Amino acid sequence: MPNAAIDCVQFYPILCNNTKQIEVNTGRILQIYKKSTAALVLFPELAICGYIPQDLLFHPHFIDAIELHALDVVSKSGGQILCFGSVLRQNGKLYNVLIICQNGKILQICKKTHLPNNSVFSESRYFTPNTEDFIVNIFIENTKIAFAICEDIWHENFIKKIQNNNPHILCVANASPYNYAKQAERYNVVKSINIPTIYCNLVGAMDGICFDGASFASNGTTINQQAKIFEEQILPVNFATQKTSVQNTSIEEGIYKAMIFTTKDFFAKCGFTKAVLGLSGGADSALVLKIASDALGPKNVFCYGLKSKYTSSSSIEDALVLVQNISNKIHFEIIDIEPLYQPFVQNLGLEGLNLQNIQARVRGAVLMAKSAQHNALVLTTGNKSEIACGYCTIYGDMCGAFNPIKDLYKTQVFAMMQWLEIFPQNILTKPPSAELSENQKDSDNLPPYNILDPILYCLIELTMSVAETLEKITKKNAFALNFNQKFNVEDITKAQKLLRLSEYKRRQSAPGPCLSPSSFEPQNWRANV
Amino acid sequence: MPNAAIDCVQFYPILCNNTKQIEVNTGRILQIYKKSTAALVLFPELAICGYIPQDLLFHPHFIDAIELHALDVVSKSGGQILCFGSVLRQNGKLYNVLIICQNGKILQICKKTHLPNNSVFSESRYFTPNTEDFIVNIFIENTKIAFAICEDIWHENFIKKIQNNNPHILCVANASPYNYAKQAERYNVVKSINIPTIYCNLVGAMDGICFDGASFASNGTTINQQAKIFEEQILPVNFATQKTSVQNTSIEEGIYKAMIFTTKDFFAKCGFTKAVLGLSGGADSALVLKIASDALGPKNVFCYGLKSKYTSSSSIEDALVLVQNISNKIHFEIIDIEPLYQPFVQNLGLEGLNLQNIQARVRGAVLMAKSAQHNALVLTTGNKSEIACGYCTIYGDMCGAFNPIKDLYKTQVFAMMQWLEIFPQNILTKPPSAELSENQKDSDNLPPYNILDPILYCLIELTMSVAETLEKITKKNAFALNFNQKFNVEDITKAQKLLRLSEYKRRQSAPGPCLSPSSFEPQNWRANV
Repeated sequence: MPNAAIDCVQFYPILCNNTKQIEVNTGRILQIYKKSTAALVLFPELAICGYIPQDLLFHPHFIDAIELHALDVVSKSGGQILCFGSVLRQNGKLYNVLIICQNGKILQICKKTHLPNNSVFSESRYFTPNTEDFIVNIFIENTKIAFAICEDIWHENFIKKIQNNNPHILCVANASPYNYAKQAERYNVVKSINIPTIYCNLVGAMDGICFDGASFASNGTTINQQAKIFEEQILPVNFATQKTSVQNTSIEEGIYKAMIFTTKDFFAKCGFTKAVLGLSGGADSALVLKIASDALGPKNVFCYGLKSKYTSSSSIEDALVLVQNISNKIHFEIIDIEPLYQPFVQNLGLEGLNLQNIQARVRGAVLMAKSAQHNALVLTTGNKSEIACGYCTIYGDMCGAFNPIKDLYKTQVFAMMQWLEIFPQNILTKPPSAELSENQKDSDNLPPYNILDPILYCLIELTMSVAETLEKITKKNAFALNFNQKFNVEDITKAQKLLRLSEYKRRQSAPGPCLSPSSFEPQNWRANV
Repeated sequence: MPNAAIDCVQFYPILCNNTKQIEVNTGRILQIYKKSTAALVLFPELAICGYIPQDLLFHPHFIDAIELHALDVVSKSGGQILCFGSVLRQNGKLYNVLIICQNGKILQICKKTHLPNNSVFSESRYFTPNTEDFIVNIFIENTKIAFAICEDIWHENFIKKIQNNNPHILCVANASPYNYAKQAERYNVVKSINIPTIYCNLVGAMDGICFDGASFASNGTTINQQAKIFEEQILPVNFATQKTSVQNTSIEEGIYKAMIFTTKDFFAKCGFTKAVLGLSGGADSALVLKIASDALGPKNVFCYGLKSKYTSSSSIEDALVLVQNISNKIHFEIIDIEPLYQPFVQNLGLEGLNLQNIQARVRGAVLMAKSAQHNALVLTTGNKSEIACGYCTIYGDMCGAFNPIKDLYKTQVFAMMQWLEIFPQNILTKPPSAELSENQKDSDNLPPYNILDPILYCLIELTMSVAETLEKITKKNAFALNFNQKFNVEDITKAQKLLRLSEYKRRQSAPGPCLSPSSFEPQNWRANV
């Protein structure tokens, strides 16, 4: 095994929108570098500015600032080799690069060759791909080390180039977004290279897109070290001496940490410490309460039971038990919305669906007012099944700055709650209801969630047509969804119709963490009225 | 001049999200083709599916349907040459192409070389660029005709290739989005080619991105024919016989038609014929009322004067005069919101900004309820200055499905109103106010709009920093904005701060037409909390 001490720095930069923040990042890069005793200190892709400052990359003054601070980092490098992700402007073109430096000088620059433009990515918007046909190498004594950036190693022809280059070690700097199926894919790609590899990933978030870290080392055949998820950490790697020690993360733990991390990160970026939410006594708001409490601390969470004449007494009781189960530091208050929405009903002559929507909108207005009183952000609590089908009120229960469970189907909400083991049995077992009219149940309007959710998964995650969904639905698998049952064309057609019809609501929905292989974030791609 | 009769079809396809719609488009392509007597019938880029079906292009069944219908068109082509924009799947890659066919057979396929990924574009997400190094030609008798797709002719090296190819006529199929400065740029590019050129553009919209048509012919030095804007039309071109006849469109007319067209198109796609809006007596809602009335017909517009104790009596009078000026078929009704929002104030103990926001949110809820009663969509009426600075209430006055004036700064709103010559003088001259508290004026919180708007233009359209804005502001020009005045660093810093802080509101805002070189549509690119 090659003998070189490499510190893989699973870095959590500020996602910059100003010059000062770039300076903070480069200050921290230098600080970590100076504490290290390794021969090579490796930082992730775009460590200097976070992934990804989006259209600020079109602002020349923003690029000026990155370049200035990148050169400052280079000038302060010492005898150990430092490698960090940055951008490089050359002949009016922008490249996504790794800068490799030592003793105040740039040794090599590795440009990204394959720019991803699917899923959450749009790198061709900003960057020009590398067209130079060689692998960037450096030597640490006799150890030849090659470099690559993220997407590059997902392309067979690039892997072949690396293999032909025959390095002792491959360092890959990544900004690889989390989803619950991702780490297994990363392992497979890295194993397929058959070269000792250090996979160094970013920690961070851009709205809902989150980077889990989970950096690891593979000796060419086995994954033998892995960093924590969603935490900044330095993983010291030396293939000559290290022993295998990898702890697997369950899907549930990954999802839960992603929801906590993105909520925390979003609040911090917005400069808020407190959250307000409506607690209905149902499953969705119960799970969001637990997330908010873990992300922000129970004393920073203010919940309101916004009861109407349609709210069952058991809902209030369930909410009370729930709050006590989680923490008595959570503020919980019942507000009667009857005197608030009845004037609308009477003055405007509301009936039918309008009677339901006005309750939701009045609740939204109450939560927004409460958030201003507490200097808090509102968390909205719609699950992916609801949001997919538009089973929610725009400017009503959709009010909120962030939605931690936006990418969990109802079935997955229940699975997460089972795993957390803290929820009153009644919340887990009663039939889902919006409680906006007498004895209302979700199943009055939607297929049951155990049927609906696998159908939505086929339509959304697997981009299938109605016919393909009907034909192939039993062959697929996904977290907590059951495909081994009968599906009928009516349910599939209905789900697709609702999915298309409710696009306009999602266009104005709060962001939430990307947890699945295909979330509703970022929203634009699907916009197609 | 080359002698060939070419019909340039400024086509308005359905932007497809299902197979049936593709069939409607191809049916209409064939219908127009069969009526034509020209030697070549030219349709725009992606005529088969509209520009652009976004992530539906990742759905294999959607591409299957396009291919099937494209081949059907080819099979039905006769002796005249037919050229239309489509997509082509080859070795698992998708290309943006022109299919050129005759007598049931494909003559040539022209693939797009330069894929735009800036502004509203993200073509690298879907398409692979052409790498074949030749220009596609056909002959009509002795006339050599070359083909190109949109972005291709905006690249000097591509123009050189065309010039070296030395065709008699160049046909360019486009899906070129409108902005008020665009047609002059198109003219310049086409003139720089120095070859008789037919510039065939799409008519249509995708949410706010709109395609104005304005197709034209240039004989190599002079633009000598031009189609109408925002209307399907066939422009018969024959360079050997035609005479110069071009009518210029004013900036105001272009902007106004864009707002009318996108509003009409959005309502049609959503399956609605009626609009609801709040009429405050101020400038913004007045202009939106005029647009709605022209787009949907006055009898389909329902406006509400949602008065509170802060609403001045002159506001109501102004609104009344306005409605009479535009059309007595418009429904106008005053609703007192005092009994609707006072219960919130009392029950929740609201004060300060909360007192203002609750009025806006109650108004939003009233308009949403009215829209459901009328089976209508709500039009929201925030201008670009307000939306840029967050001077609006989320889930309040921001409620609505579409915002026709989203991309007009307040100064530009007034300029458009002056041009329309239908608005009561009082609406044009009184100081802007949200009327949410006693004697409130916009200028209490924001720099005056004649100062604010040019600053915002520098920050948004010109991607300048605060320092650059301060230094260079006098050198720029834009529709109706005055740069010849003194600006100070405090106002610029304040505008930039508000712009960044209010990003979260824009993320949940209604779509609106792209009118300027840099609108807030699509929203994702700027998201950077």
